[in-house]
Amino acid sequence: MAGKSVSTRTARTRRAITAAAEDQFLASGFLGTSMDEIAAAAQVSKQTVYSHFQSKEALFLEVVSGMTGGAGDEVLEKVEDPVEETPMETFLLDYAESLLAIVVTPRLMRLRRLVIGEAERFPELGKVLHRRGPQRSIDRLSAAFERYMRAGSLRQADPRVAATTFNWLVMGGPVNDAMLLGDEAIPDASSMSAYANEAVRVFLAAYGSRP
Amino acid sequence: MAGKSVSTRTARTRRAITAAAEDQFLASGFLGTSMDEIAAAAQVSKQTVYSHFQSKEALFLEVVSGMTGGAGDEVLEKVEDPVEETPMETFLLDYAESLLAIVVTPRLMRLRRLVIGEAERFPELGKVLHRRGPQRSIDRLSAAFERYMRAGSLRQADPRVAATTFNWLVMGGPVNDAMLLGDEAIPDASSMSAYANEAVRVFLAAYGSRP
Repeated sequence: MAGKSVSTRTARTRRAITAAAEDQFLASGFLGTSMDEIAAAAQVSKQTVYSHFQSKEALFLEVVSGMTGGAGDEVLEKVEDPVEETPMETFLLDYAESLLAIVVTPRLMRLRRLVIGEAERFPELGKVLHRRGPQRSIDRLSAAFERYMRAGSLRQADPRVAATTFNWLVMGGPVNDAMLLGDEAIPDASSMSAYANEAVRVFLAAYGSRP
Repeated sequence: MAGKSVSTRTARTRRAITAAAEDQFLASGFLGTSMDEIAAAAQVSKQTVYSHFQSKEALFLEVVSGMTGGAGDEVLEKVEDPVEETPMETFLLDYAESLLAIVVTPRLMRLRRLVIGEAERFPELGKVLHRRGPQRSIDRLSAAFERYMRAGSLRQADPRVAATTFNWLVMGGPVNDAMLLGDEAIPDASSMSAYANEAVRVFLAAYGSRP
């Protein structure tokens, strides 16, 4: 029992540190944030921070991994993997709209700008965001497309190429505009819906099974 | 005559400063570069640098504008605007391949990472890269697509939506991979060609005039 309550407290402290680090990094960038500030914001000692994360880099990596993975989990919860009866178009539209609404947000776009700005000095960051972000999305789409191809609802093709194409049809414009133009370029709900519809229409014209 | 040779010398000095600044910024980033280093690399006094550019920000803006605009000019030279006889598919393939080959390079991808990393502190940078980069490309495609639509080689549609879709079909994956994964993710010539072909095929399936 004592063991359990210690591990619960440890987990809680770890979450407090990660949450404080997330806010600090997003507000001040990687170089502009110190472990002292994170400790103060998390209301723990600096020693405690270091007992959980060996370095500021390790902590930043955890933040990137957590935020990106969390967004992917949200999309997964919102759009279940298609079962046989789910029409292709319904799945694609739900997926596109959820991906845009969950990923193209001020916090995640800011995180992405930070990671890209640090990608050369600290390549592991970009790799983690890529793996837990677009790569995971493309893997998941690829598996769904393989099933739709087997069922004849999509033309026979390389499911990975199809998934990459669909992912960037949806995300290419909005993500790149947000990277360069900042939060004002984040599309409103109706523009996101228009983007999603265009992406699905274009994708199905190329990959849908002919009527 | 004297006036002319002074202005030639002034222009030459300005070019030397811009070239030195380009190398320094790409090597050390915006914060990591000083006006002293740029002056030394350009073999001029710091005072001369300031007589051309009031601030490090103004000089960085000039570098971003010059590099991005230069790449756009190169694409323009390589792929002329289509005349009536140019088949749609030829224009699209040439455009896609040139855009990838000229823009997805280590220098321009590094510049883009720098600009994104500074976009919040220094929003004008991202705006300039956007205006002289993707926006210019989309404007040009839009004008070409309008002509093809009038000629009946493309379905009637909003040419700007079509141009945005085509631009990100070509650039979305490669640019985003390069942003997060660095230069190793820059596709080789055969992958670029595969990307361009997929983009053109998908685009024409949705926007080509039906046979």
